[in-house]
Amino acid sequence: MKRLAILGSTGSIGVQALDVISRFPDRFEVVALSAGRNVARLAEQVARFRPRLVAVADDAAARDLRALVPAGVEVVPGDGGAVAAASHPDVEFVLAAISGGAGLRSTAAAIEAGKAIGLANKESLVLAGELLVRRAVERGATILPVDSEHSAIHQSLVGHNRAEVRRLLLTASGGPLREVPAAELRDVSPARALRHPNWSMGDKITIDSATLMNKGLEVIEARWLFDVEPRRIDIVVHPESIVHSMVEYIDGSMVAQLGVSDMRGPISYALGYPGRLALELAPLDLARIGRLTFEPPDAGRFPAFTLAYRALERGGTAPAVLSGADEAAVAAFLAGRCRFTDIAELCAAALEAHMVEPLRSVEQALQASEWGRREAERRVAR
Amino acid sequence: MKRLAILGSTGSIGVQALDVISRFPDRFEVVALSAGRNVARLAEQVARFRPRLVAVADDAAARDLRALVPAGVEVVPGDGGAVAAASHPDVEFVLAAISGGAGLRSTAAAIEAGKAIGLANKESLVLAGELLVRRAVERGATILPVDSEHSAIHQSLVGHNRAEVRRLLLTASGGPLREVPAAELRDVSPARALRHPNWSMGDKITIDSATLMNKGLEVIEARWLFDVEPRRIDIVVHPESIVHSMVEYIDGSMVAQLGVSDMRGPISYALGYPGRLALELAPLDLARIGRLTFEPPDAGRFPAFTLAYRALERGGTAPAVLSGADEAAVAAFLAGRCRFTDIAELCAAALEAHMVEPLRSVEQALQASEWGRREAERRVAR
Repeated sequence: MKRLAILGSTGSIGVQALDVISRFPDRFEVVALSAGRNVARLAEQVARFRPRLVAVADDAAARDLRALVPAGVEVVPGDGGAVAAASHPDVEFVLAAISGGAGLRSTAAAIEAGKAIGLANKESLVLAGELLVRRAVERGATILPVDSEHSAIHQSLVGHNRAEVRRLLLTASGGPLREVPAAELRDVSPARALRHPNWSMGDKITIDSATLMNKGLEVIEARWLFDVEPRRIDIVVHPESIVHSMVEYIDGSMVAQLGVSDMRGPISYALGYPGRLALELAPLDLARIGRLTFEPPDAGRFPAFTLAYRALERGGTAPAVLSGADEAAVAAFLAGRCRFTDIAELCAAALEAHMVEPLRSVEQALQASEWGRREAERRVAR
Repeated sequence: MKRLAILGSTGSIGVQALDVISRFPDRFEVVALSAGRNVARLAEQVARFRPRLVAVADDAAARDLRALVPAGVEVVPGDGGAVAAASHPDVEFVLAAISGGAGLRSTAAAIEAGKAIGLANKESLVLAGELLVRRAVERGATILPVDSEHSAIHQSLVGHNRAEVRRLLLTASGGPLREVPAAELRDVSPARALRHPNWSMGDKITIDSATLMNKGLEVIEARWLFDVEPRRIDIVVHPESIVHSMVEYIDGSMVAQLGVSDMRGPISYALGYPGRLALELAPLDLARIGRLTFEPPDAGRFPAFTLAYRALERGGTAPAVLSGADEAAVAAFLAGRCRFTDIAELCAAALEAHMVEPLRSVEQALQASEWGRREAERRVAR
């Protein structure tokens, strides 16, 4: 029995994780759940998985939830609730699936508690990867990626010699605007940019996929997760999203992981590791799919991914600023307050305006992200 | 220093292996070479790699070679020469690259001597895989595949749990006749069938590639090398020969190995294992290649691969009979003595005519192969 905490249990990843977990009642026990304000769904999850501790966003949500769950269930509001779930002494494995910068403190708490962590919260590594991976080593915590690209790299590295890696190759779907000419990008509407061909995800990540910023943020994640220098991390656009990513070794051989586009794949890989769960996902039928295509990313139309390399080059607090600026810019675009092409420009301007500091704490990373958000916001309002 | 014996040193694989070895003079020492009658090339190899023992086909070749090499080099003729090279006490690693059934005795000798073996001789496993893998375990010998497909599977299995394998997926180029309509196959000339699009190989294996018999024989190899039941080994046609093969795990995830079509890749993987050699092969540029295609194998036009499954089903001496029948049928086709479509028919007829016996010895496997050869030959002559 692996004892779990699911942070972000009512979000897309959390719900899919509980779907996987429900199929293996003999392998997993849910000790703690953490969510925001979706009390109705959370109450259903409590009834089904019987956790001992449930974290919610605030006092109001806690009050509402207490009315719906058995008296024995401990309900804890606020940031402290997610941290309590992440560091609960009975928990072995924490699925960190809170979205956005809000997930960083609970990820850090899970690391301090020396847990095994399935990390679906991208911002944890983007904002503070340098600190977190160092601290994970010191505290004996292990971080397993829960997204298709980094899970693919993990599966393509396991059993091989890290010193023999020449290059990581992240695949990118290219997003919903891959074929839109440069001249039209300026006038793309939010509705059009939200139409992702392969993956059903939240709005923020879908826009990040359209700008390729998402792939840039994944470069930052990969840099810390796998301890590989940025110049050894490349991107290739692969619209079918079947090859989830690849590793090239010093002899020119590449190892890749392939699968259907279903997040339950990487979720179950992290949950089961070092074993695999016998999921009954649709099998990948390459003969039926017929063809896989690849093309270089177009930095002319989609410059956002290049900003991630620039942020890593600047180092310290720069990646956190990029992440914050992107959150604000995407929100502004979705609200009709700026153009699609402004997103990368706002991020670039915030990144260059920032006075980089060496990264010393999670709080500092959150402040840098907040600085980036305000800086981009200020430029939108101008 | 890894001390090597190269069996079949003047053949295609042997020459490419020595090319790889020559780039890493600090890692490898060539203790023994074995070849047939290409004395001139062998003498050059002796001058360059300074082996202590050299095996040649017969007394005449031995006499010619002795005149060309320093007196201290031991020259041994006949089958005993290759066996002496394979079991030389100073040798750690044997590259078994003699082609055809002739390679079986020396492979068996390397196994008996408990060597690490880079196996490029397909027939060893096709004729006597059941015996050899059992004996390898008993003698502490390790077998590393030296062909692109099985090397890919090895690289896709290492570090993963064998018990979690659902399926092996061997890729096939489809060969030079992949797009030829069924009605035209009967009249295909040897010259046309020899035009392989991706790989430069010997005549026998190129025809086997055209009939897909080669892929069938690889199914038999994979069955023994990786201890996987035949029903869990599938074939997918992939004309670009970039994805060299794949492994599907119980969670639906597939791990694959990709690379350029260069046999020095799998050769160096086996030579270097468990390390990799920093080969300066052309890197694989997927964005430039652009697309990879896949289709099911067509058992209607190319039934030969299905005979391999049938041979495994019959068991015992049946795979050896199939191999021998195929050697004779391909030779007859190349000599203009039978049609392209007769190859599979001759093999099927020999396979069904054979009275299967349980496999007890290498000699028995060689006799069964010889029986298959004569049976196919007899039917051609009719």
